[in-house]
Amino acid sequence: MTNMTERAKALDEADPLRAVRDAFFLPEGMIYFDGNSLGAMPKSALEIVSEATQQEWATDLITSWNKAGWFALPTEYGDMLAPAIGASAGEVVICDSTSINLYKALFAGLSLRPERSVIVAEASSFPTDLYMIEGALSSRPGLEMRLSEDNLIDLIDESVAVVLVNHVDYRSGQLADVTAITAKAHEMGAVVIWDLCHSAGIMPVDLNKHNVDLAIGCTYKYLNGGPGAPAFVYCAAEHIPHISQPLSGWWGHAQPFSFETGYAPDAGIRKFLCGTQPILSFRALKAGLDVLAPLDIKDIRAKSQSLTSLFIELVEAQVPGLTLASPREAELRGSQVSFSHPEAYPIVQALIERGVVGDFRMPNILRFGFSPLYLSHADVVEAVTRLSEIMESGVWKEPRFQARSAVT
Amino acid sequence: MTNMTERAKALDEADPLRAVRDAFFLPEGMIYFDGNSLGAMPKSALEIVSEATQQEWATDLITSWNKAGWFALPTEYGDMLAPAIGASAGEVVICDSTSINLYKALFAGLSLRPERSVIVAEASSFPTDLYMIEGALSSRPGLEMRLSEDNLIDLIDESVAVVLVNHVDYRSGQLADVTAITAKAHEMGAVVIWDLCHSAGIMPVDLNKHNVDLAIGCTYKYLNGGPGAPAFVYCAAEHIPHISQPLSGWWGHAQPFSFETGYAPDAGIRKFLCGTQPILSFRALKAGLDVLAPLDIKDIRAKSQSLTSLFIELVEAQVPGLTLASPREAELRGSQVSFSHPEAYPIVQALIERGVVGDFRMPNILRFGFSPLYLSHADVVEAVTRLSEIMESGVWKEPRFQARSAVT
Repeated sequence: MTNMTERAKALDEADPLRAVRDAFFLPEGMIYFDGNSLGAMPKSALEIVSEATQQEWATDLITSWNKAGWFALPTEYGDMLAPAIGASAGEVVICDSTSINLYKALFAGLSLRPERSVIVAEASSFPTDLYMIEGALSSRPGLEMRLSEDNLIDLIDESVAVVLVNHVDYRSGQLADVTAITAKAHEMGAVVIWDLCHSAGIMPVDLNKHNVDLAIGCTYKYLNGGPGAPAFVYCAAEHIPHISQPLSGWWGHAQPFSFETGYAPDAGIRKFLCGTQPILSFRALKAGLDVLAPLDIKDIRAKSQSLTSLFIELVEAQVPGLTLASPREAELRGSQVSFSHPEAYPIVQALIERGVVGDFRMPNILRFGFSPLYLSHADVVEAVTRLSEIMESGVWKEPRFQARSAVT
Repeated sequence: MTNMTERAKALDEADPLRAVRDAFFLPEGMIYFDGNSLGAMPKSALEIVSEATQQEWATDLITSWNKAGWFALPTEYGDMLAPAIGASAGEVVICDSTSINLYKALFAGLSLRPERSVIVAEASSFPTDLYMIEGALSSRPGLEMRLSEDNLIDLIDESVAVVLVNHVDYRSGQLADVTAITAKAHEMGAVVIWDLCHSAGIMPVDLNKHNVDLAIGCTYKYLNGGPGAPAFVYCAAEHIPHISQPLSGWWGHAQPFSFETGYAPDAGIRKFLCGTQPILSFRALKAGLDVLAPLDIKDIRAKSQSLTSLFIELVEAQVPGLTLASPREAELRGSQVSFSHPEAYPIVQALIERGVVGDFRMPNILRFGFSPLYLSHADVVEAVTRLSEIMESGVWKEPRFQARSAVT
């Protein structure tokens, strides 16, 4: 292990992101591999949120609409996020939840292809995406959902209006071939929506480069926006004038403060807004966007690949019994590594008790998410040491690790 | 004025809610009549929000799902709100924005009347309500919106699926005759939705007593939940098993953590939930609900009527040129008083500079909202004194009060 410790030390010393760790609060002794579920708190969030509460709400009250620029936050923060996902200013807006934004994006896509009615998605999609397609089907009779197993690209033909693809599989971490899927969708005249929940902030996404039509994603994972932080919608600039979406609330109105009776959408990306946004949760998100802003997303991706590759190497060398459930090639996976084990659940619980926080995914997956903003190669070495000890000791067989909590 | 000061003093001394003022932070010298736009901050909010940020997010991270009960907050807080609006436990859920909840409620209502397609609403409705009906129409072809001028009740016939009524007119403060409208709707077999944005927390609402089918409202006005605080949906218990709504995200799933491919709604009020909720904004709302919980809503209504009646009396006696634009009879208005004046905008600006914060509503309305939780009769006397001085001095004619800000 000494060699390994030295190797990790050398990697960390050469890491251009090593100082970013100081921007985050993490509990003493915890090695946090759940940034793909809920990102850690940037230290500045506490002050930003307190300031928003005491100054903007309590003291300035309604004058904060102008003074603190509340109404502009969705596009202001959208523009901050845009470079990280390869979008241009004016193409991204922060609002609502990922699920709600997907509903908007589905109808926006359908509005571009009014003569078509098929929505294609992956059966292995993050489930709420499929639930929202079901919701769209229930609100507009005549739509059809076509689900792929491993053949998404084969399902795209000229009857398809919208293709929804998860950039990263939430279980395995496998990257979808979004380039090929997008090209095929466009060849068939379909509109593509990328779900970026597990890629935004952790790897280059290049929405503009791939002529992606629409995208949605959350901000509470690798963007470290806080629990339930507002999500985002991207729409390619060329489509914005032509799309419509049915959640047409007052924040999306061209003249929101004129209180007109009829709805007239904003001319820009704000047409994806609906109701009043939760300002305190918005402000927390700013802390995460501030950390990301000066960083090079290519550095983040490089470190992510280095961390995940090291983790796979060490687990396979030191921990018998775990089977890799993620792509072995770094360029084929997002920033997570999953292993399968028949007793994944109690092992994850025992690991958490030892300060190594990953999570369990049905039915037998140990899932580890890697945020290069606050994880080091030394953390990886230490985590695998603890995992190895747990597996050797068999401590995870104790009954207290078996009991399922309400939320897993 | 001395007599008036003494009368106000006597009224305040007899006020059973007088101690509640101490629960709120308000800037020194400000008399705040905009609690119907953004309620004041309960002092406890600052600590609750900081604690949620530092402890729940930063320290406990994903364990907060269980430890802090994040997943249960929408129904936990819904049950806290229920008594104030005459609902039972299990009939109210907190989530998303008012506009989004209205979209859900519209489709929930339509799901109870699948053979009908007409939605009736007031032309004078809060505009975003009409925008959301337009959105529903755009997502389901074949629906029809029927708008009333002053004859809502006459438009309700056996073709009507859903009647949407604003409990309080946002401009005049006039109460709708919701009892008669609800009875007529039910007589015609229609479902009724009450918009409670301007009545929740300020007066008895009695949803159960009137057999109201559905209701929605915000929590950042008289419920003091904070800027953009999550909104609420009410559904009568008898309807819950039978309704569906299309924003069917994972938080509304019967088994949200089993990651099933197909959507199966929760059996209870949680079926109105969609995506992950903004936890920090949720926590702020708790401060407002905590203040309300021990109070008697009848005391709140009585004080509200006393404050607004005194305000009308004093303005009409001391301030020539303003015309009452709210009902004179206390039982016919909510907790606001509007006056019209051709130069309403600059007068409101001059008042704000003098620490009397009301707001302007197009085209010529000065609107004053009265929260009995933090306003006293003495405040009313002082506010009218300042208004009178402004009108007499003509200070509002100065050019600096004329310039419209982006947000009015």
